[in-house]
Amino acid sequence: MKEKNFFLNRSTVRCYSERPIDESLLRDMIEAAAHAPNTGNMQWYSVVVTRDAEQKKRLAPAHFNQPSVTGASAVLTFCADLNRFEQWCRINRATPGFNNFQSFVAALIDTSIFAQQFCTIAEMNGMGTCYLGTTAYNAPQIAEVLKLPHRVVPVITVTVGYPAAEGGATWRLPIHCILHSEVYEPKSDAEIAAAYKSLEDDPASHKFIAENNKETLAQVFTDVRYPRESAEYFSKVYLDFIQDNGFTMPEE
Amino acid sequence: MKEKNFFLNRSTVRCYSERPIDESLLRDMIEAAAHAPNTGNMQWYSVVVTRDAEQKKRLAPAHFNQPSVTGASAVLTFCADLNRFEQWCRINRATPGFNNFQSFVAALIDTSIFAQQFCTIAEMNGMGTCYLGTTAYNAPQIAEVLKLPHRVVPVITVTVGYPAAEGGATWRLPIHCILHSEVYEPKSDAEIAAAYKSLEDDPASHKFIAENNKETLAQVFTDVRYPRESAEYFSKVYLDFIQDNGFTMPEE
Repeated sequence: MKEKNFFLNRSTVRCYSERPIDESLLRDMIEAAAHAPNTGNMQWYSVVVTRDAEQKKRLAPAHFNQPSVTGASAVLTFCADLNRFEQWCRINRATPGFNNFQSFVAALIDTSIFAQQFCTIAEMNGMGTCYLGTTAYNAPQIAEVLKLPHRVVPVITVTVGYPAAEGGATWRLPIHCILHSEVYEPKSDAEIAAAYKSLEDDPASHKFIAENNKETLAQVFTDVRYPRESAEYFSKVYLDFIQDNGFTMPEE
Repeated sequence: MKEKNFFLNRSTVRCYSERPIDESLLRDMIEAAAHAPNTGNMQWYSVVVTRDAEQKKRLAPAHFNQPSVTGASAVLTFCADLNRFEQWCRINRATPGFNNFQSFVAALIDTSIFAQQFCTIAEMNGMGTCYLGTTAYNAPQIAEVLKLPHRVVPVITVTVGYPAAEGGATWRLPIHCILHSEVYEPKSDAEIAAAYKSLEDDPASHKFIAENNKETLAQVFTDVRYPRESAEYFSKVYLDFIQDNGFTMPEE
């Protein structure tokens, strides 16, 4: 398999050197990424590039001040964008019917694919990238800073820059947990426990458990890192934002 | 920029040769793709690989019998999978709070990223891929054929095989439509019209308009290819399926 080691050994990079990304290279990488596949070639996405230091500072609180926002050479906010396509429809006497959940899901998938293609290209060109999941938490603030018009919803933020240090492969589940042949192959509790053992045995995991006064690593995920209350709160914020942007949910 | 031509010239491949994909190569590609970034390294996704001819035939109707399903060497159904992670939580006395819209969105994004990483790897290894958007239409039928358990939602299907013919670059909007600097830069109607001109001037577009008895290409999209009625119907089917799988939407 070509490029096997490149894909197996990639990892997220949160700390960047001072070296800036050349403006035309960044543009070329985004242009190449936009050739990733998308639904019906309707290209329901946009990316807003933040390079200005003051703009980064304005964005940072929406990302809970993660240092990679102000430390990156560029911050890319990938948005589901129905605005532009619907403008084209209006110019051409066509009546779009995209104000629904299905269209939102399609735009979300296509925006994610575009973002990931960008990350792969950036990594192949010696840069490091970091996804910020906070984009789907604090969409209203991000939309304000980036002056997003109606029908443009932020989905993913990627910070990008030249790495400050060498990375290394990240832990993943054994592939037999992810990959199912012909039908879904449920795993026994013993198989799941075995699959997570090397992660649980990692000294970093022991540290997380101790620091957070928990019994198990799973509890760090459920109680500390991704608690129900936070997920429910931001579910409402994001859904409200999507609906305010004209995506109507089906009636019960 | 490294690999510029590879990324700029890629295109979707719907017709495949008879040559099968080697089983271990397919597995290696999926394993490498699973090293794509994901939220908190929780790996909320699975992929079900369909190689058996009878299984492909069972899947085909859910994809409106698009020939790439039965014609591909492999059909990969990428699913948002909370089942496995929640099983691990349960084994470890942790109470997951992931039955909400935010967790669904995170899983949808991560599943899309995983799928796209697979497509890039497959294309780099000489294969062609095709996304089927029908997965988010007919999720209930797909779940039945693939025996997906509770909390596993199909998101994306990719067909993959060796191309039957050479492809070529696909039309995309000029990058200044997609890429915005610092803040969103709205385009005038004249700019949008100019951006779409080369697509509208394409003989294939004229053919679509004539065949469908429409006045403009945009009307082919809104009235024929992606009509409101279909999008609203499948919005309800998919949302119901998601909710049946334990993702609760926020209260109004």
